[in-house]
Amino acid sequence: MSKTLAIDAMGGDKAPHITIEGVALALKAHPNINFKIFGHKDSVPAELARQGLDTHSQVEFIACNQIITGATEPRRAIREFADSSMRRAIECVANKEADAVVSAGNTGAYMILSKLILKTIPGLQRAAITTLMPTRFGKGVVMLDLGGNVDVPAEVLVQFCMMGQAFATSTQGIKNPSVALLNIGSEELKGTAVLKEAQSMIQNSNAIANYKGFVEGDDIFDEKVDVIVTDGFTGNVSLKTVEGTVKFFASLMKEELQRSWITKIGALIARPAFKAFKDRVDPRRYNGAQFLGLQGISVKSHGGTDGFGFSNAIHVAVELAENKVNESLERELESLQEKLFLASNTSYKV
Amino acid sequence: MSKTLAIDAMGGDKAPHITIEGVALALKAHPNINFKIFGHKDSVPAELARQGLDTHSQVEFIACNQIITGATEPRRAIREFADSSMRRAIECVANKEADAVVSAGNTGAYMILSKLILKTIPGLQRAAITTLMPTRFGKGVVMLDLGGNVDVPAEVLVQFCMMGQAFATSTQGIKNPSVALLNIGSEELKGTAVLKEAQSMIQNSNAIANYKGFVEGDDIFDEKVDVIVTDGFTGNVSLKTVEGTVKFFASLMKEELQRSWITKIGALIARPAFKAFKDRVDPRRYNGAQFLGLQGISVKSHGGTDGFGFSNAIHVAVELAENKVNESLERELESLQEKLFLASNTSYKV
Repeated sequence: MSKTLAIDAMGGDKAPHITIEGVALALKAHPNINFKIFGHKDSVPAELARQGLDTHSQVEFIACNQIITGATEPRRAIREFADSSMRRAIECVANKEADAVVSAGNTGAYMILSKLILKTIPGLQRAAITTLMPTRFGKGVVMLDLGGNVDVPAEVLVQFCMMGQAFATSTQGIKNPSVALLNIGSEELKGTAVLKEAQSMIQNSNAIANYKGFVEGDDIFDEKVDVIVTDGFTGNVSLKTVEGTVKFFASLMKEELQRSWITKIGALIARPAFKAFKDRVDPRRYNGAQFLGLQGISVKSHGGTDGFGFSNAIHVAVELAENKVNESLERELESLQEKLFLASNTSYKV
Repeated sequence: MSKTLAIDAMGGDKAPHITIEGVALALKAHPNINFKIFGHKDSVPAELARQGLDTHSQVEFIACNQIITGATEPRRAIREFADSSMRRAIECVANKEADAVVSAGNTGAYMILSKLILKTIPGLQRAAITTLMPTRFGKGVVMLDLGGNVDVPAEVLVQFCMMGQAFATSTQGIKNPSVALLNIGSEELKGTAVLKEAQSMIQNSNAIANYKGFVEGDDIFDEKVDVIVTDGFTGNVSLKTVEGTVKFFASLMKEELQRSWITKIGALIARPAFKAFKDRVDPRRYNGAQFLGLQGISVKSHGGTDGFGFSNAIHVAVELAENKVNESLERELESLQEKLFLASNTSYKV
């Protein structure tokens, strides 16, 4: 059956222009998907018309009177924005009128509203921002949490491992995904107390069939493991550090290539390589992270992306809906919770 | 007066070959520095002879009977390795027989021994691994802690800010360095409780004259601030993530440039640019981090570096000794501690 996506047209730096452009691009790639577009009554219809979507049979526009901006305090978003495009798009998933929601808006508000409206899967305490990061040989690595939860206890890290495991299985088709916790390697100080506790819980409960222990920041791209788990603070710093490093290196490389006419000529001749390289590391291609652990698919797009980037976030949502990641997560959780419960009540004591 | 450096010749993956090679290189750059080389009686003399340093008037060899390896448990290093090259090199600084010590050995053991023997500067609770990271326009950014302290309270983060401030002033000559705390940007979840507390302590005490608030992982290379402070866990993950990203990108770039004969030719012509780029991002050039906050200069080299890299760690130690970073840190600390004390006893309550 063809899927339906709820789109918050008002989120992101250049909304609704880029969101509607993203929908148009996504429709070309997924011609059988239906879209419910939630947006402001004034600005969105013009964009829909510009993209030729105003009369499209698979595109429905739902006018809303409120907009949650980047400046909106998340707590206020809960109380005062009942008729916002973001909230109504999420509600559409809760009501089973859509299979997934996509927004490029205010991360804090989107996360808090998604949790409130969609609710966590029974047995899970928190949702984690989860994405597939590119890696050296193209396989990719599932990484979570990328910013959802700042202070997390060991038990939640173990749940994140389970969640990542289920995500890798259902979205990438990996039978027995390997899972590791992100840590530091210094001999004396191997990790925080929370990390040691989480590892001990995993080892004592056999909760993660293919648990590989700790990996370090320089292992992210190495394909050593299929899933890397960390708290939202560390994950977000790590992700942003990757972004910063990429920008830094690209700017240095550009500077050096433009330093003389010889290097300029070389760069011109090698242009296909630079283009291919740029495409492979294009952050827009990896746009779209799921709030994993909720009873519904909620995908966050980068706020600064463009139409192409937003269409990729839609693509992620489509894939997640088609692969039924949440159903398989719920199934796996049952047996895993049991193991963890048994372990924590018998052999395991911190 | 010319400085004397104590060198642990046995630390690092390829010791003592690379350490002695590093000393030989450093002597060329700093012909007036004296070296005290601590190493095993069997392996080091041969390396010294190979580098023509066995009869050098500024090079003294002190034979030791024990070696702390990467596998040595740091706690055991305290109790059982009294005659190790690492310990004796550190003691040499404590006894004022050398102005700084450099080792590429076991980080945990080196840190714990340095703290034990050199002791923290009165008023400081912890030492932080501190280095100058390269940045976009060449200015560099002082970053700490890169792995020394995993769980840190707010008060220690504030001390790290002071330490980084003094470091930037004395080593880079920046009059009023700007300082920021590394954080995440998500609206709702702006930071851990510890970070919020640290910021509030700084703001209430005016401890840091040019405090800039929070920066994110993608600001590291941007020269937004002169000093970035974080806990040792986050700092280490961030540093390792940079390393991993660099390797990942270099491998992708190489792959694309070798894909066809056209791109190969272009790469060949643009070779000076790639060479210059490689030199600028060469991790060996940025090798050498200080355990800042101790009553003596203790510099850590990467264990996997080569002779050139080790000579750069020596260069860092020479610069720190010549710029008297510790003396200026002690001086500044007095007035800063006073401010902090006053603030915490008057207006500020968590």
